[in-house]
Amino acid sequence: MNEKTIDVLAIGNAIVDVITDSDDGFLSSQGMAKGSMRLIDAGEAERLYEAMGPGREASGGSAANTVAGLAALGLRTAFVGQLGDDDLGQIFAHDIRSLGVDFRTPPSADAGATARCLILVTPDAQRTMNTFLGAAQHLDKSAIDPAAIAAARIVYLEGYLWDPEQPRAAMEAAIDLAHSAGTKVAFTLSDGFVVERHRADFLRLIDEGKIDILFANEQEFLHLAQATSLDSAIADFAGKVPTLVVTRSERGALAHSGNERASVPAEPIERLVDTTGAGDLFAAGFLAGQAKGKSLEDSLRLGAIAASEVIQHYGARPELDLAALAAPLL
Amino acid sequence: MNEKTIDVLAIGNAIVDVITDSDDGFLSSQGMAKGSMRLIDAGEAERLYEAMGPGREASGGSAANTVAGLAALGLRTAFVGQLGDDDLGQIFAHDIRSLGVDFRTPPSADAGATARCLILVTPDAQRTMNTFLGAAQHLDKSAIDPAAIAAARIVYLEGYLWDPEQPRAAMEAAIDLAHSAGTKVAFTLSDGFVVERHRADFLRLIDEGKIDILFANEQEFLHLAQATSLDSAIADFAGKVPTLVVTRSERGALAHSGNERASVPAEPIERLVDTTGAGDLFAAGFLAGQAKGKSLEDSLRLGAIAASEVIQHYGARPELDLAALAAPLL
Repeated sequence: MNEKTIDVLAIGNAIVDVITDSDDGFLSSQGMAKGSMRLIDAGEAERLYEAMGPGREASGGSAANTVAGLAALGLRTAFVGQLGDDDLGQIFAHDIRSLGVDFRTPPSADAGATARCLILVTPDAQRTMNTFLGAAQHLDKSAIDPAAIAAARIVYLEGYLWDPEQPRAAMEAAIDLAHSAGTKVAFTLSDGFVVERHRADFLRLIDEGKIDILFANEQEFLHLAQATSLDSAIADFAGKVPTLVVTRSERGALAHSGNERASVPAEPIERLVDTTGAGDLFAAGFLAGQAKGKSLEDSLRLGAIAASEVIQHYGARPELDLAALAAPLL
Repeated sequence: MNEKTIDVLAIGNAIVDVITDSDDGFLSSQGMAKGSMRLIDAGEAERLYEAMGPGREASGGSAANTVAGLAALGLRTAFVGQLGDDDLGQIFAHDIRSLGVDFRTPPSADAGATARCLILVTPDAQRTMNTFLGAAQHLDKSAIDPAAIAAARIVYLEGYLWDPEQPRAAMEAAIDLAHSAGTKVAFTLSDGFVVERHRADFLRLIDEGKIDILFANEQEFLHLAQATSLDSAIADFAGKVPTLVVTRSERGALAHSGNERASVPAEPIERLVDTTGAGDLFAAGFLAGQAKGKSLEDSLRLGAIAASEVIQHYGARPELDLAALAAPLL
């Protein structure tokens, strides 16, 4: 057993978000499925950017948002993701390092431009994401440091990384390294369409016992289980995944671990602004609780607290002092 | 008299803001004067950025914020400012064009990196700005199109541009072009330290009758007048400046024009978040009123409305529908 000097090491797309206000009419005119993430190429990114209103830029990336939240909660974290050698890459690297996250993946001049996600926020605070992966899709296996994986208590992986080939191979390698080093693997399904594209792979990982903690929202989980009821989906997977966490937006969240089951309501909020990052921050709160040996219910509650902060402002990283908000439980 | 197809053409620093939360201790440790703007070089920009927390990026620049506000209020606007050929330059150009502002200054690969302003927002919502001018200081006279100046009803200039030599010459040229084309010149003093550095020049411009509309906050105006009371400063300048506008933060604003004087209180707000852009948006509201032939008092009130919107969120450009907020008056 290695000495665990990192609580959570996350591997994900290193993305800068470009956030703009939009309306349902614009989404339909662009043929977008509201609330989802779609991949776009450089040409489409340029065309859509030109059609969009003025933006606010902020570091994003699903797993990166989760480690940002974990760092804000005081945990020891590391991140692995591929940036290009440009202004946006510098912004991403600065933001994540300034939170205390150990981030060492060197930017690549050959990998193309740093990934960006054009996020349209509608008046109902729902976010619709259009991701140009750029450099992020060239995250290579060689960026995974076996010593860092072994030093982590949990490796956290995002399903989004399953789309491009190179990062998928890097993740498979990370999973194997983790299990031979006594490091747990946490995995988020990320998006309904991602589950549709990679359902067979995700089921295989689960069947092979490679996922220790699975995060999904209700819709993603029903897609995975090909089920219509949450209860039957949970019954189906409870035996295959040591810890299963399902988020249900304003209806709260539930978890199943061994013989234990817990659920919590959503935290009350003052104003709903932008739901981007809600799932990412929920995962941060939950993992913080688990890393600190808290109960399943308290871990869920920590997830709900972290998610409630991030949906009350634009951007997918916490702005308020998360550690102070979580102090009663952590 | 030329046909006026542009309501306001602004010339200013083309800057992307990097906004972070900070506290008084950090400001003192960095030797910053709270609430002011200081110029920094590339090395200091890098050092300070490394010491700062995570940022939010958004297009800024004082005069650029003002035209952004004017465009949001439905006026016909144009902007002139120098960008570098990089990601931040693309962000600035996209944001201002997406608002309908006519922006044609080509980015320059030789002028260096696009300007950035590292803005520290303290819990009292005060902003302290550290500007690396980069490409912006290479705004050349050749970027000023005489036909565009002649087509504008008002040319709006920021005092900040007086620091670097090239833009100062460009502004002097723009002022002369404006006056020979029947275009009014509006000018903002920008900052107390800017006034200290260039007081003699600003007084000369005023004495030569080159400023038709002067914007200042109380402190800047007292610096300019070397006065201790606002009344005596106004008495001193009322005869020299056709329209004089003085903003007084939470105490509202006043204006003096010909024999007329008006004042308004600040608009009530729900929560004070970040005062960056308050003066810029006040100028936008006031100029919109003047361009639409509104009374001095209604123009002030429009300024107060636009300023009140921008101080209730991070970033110096409006997020809510300014035209709707201003509709009762405009």
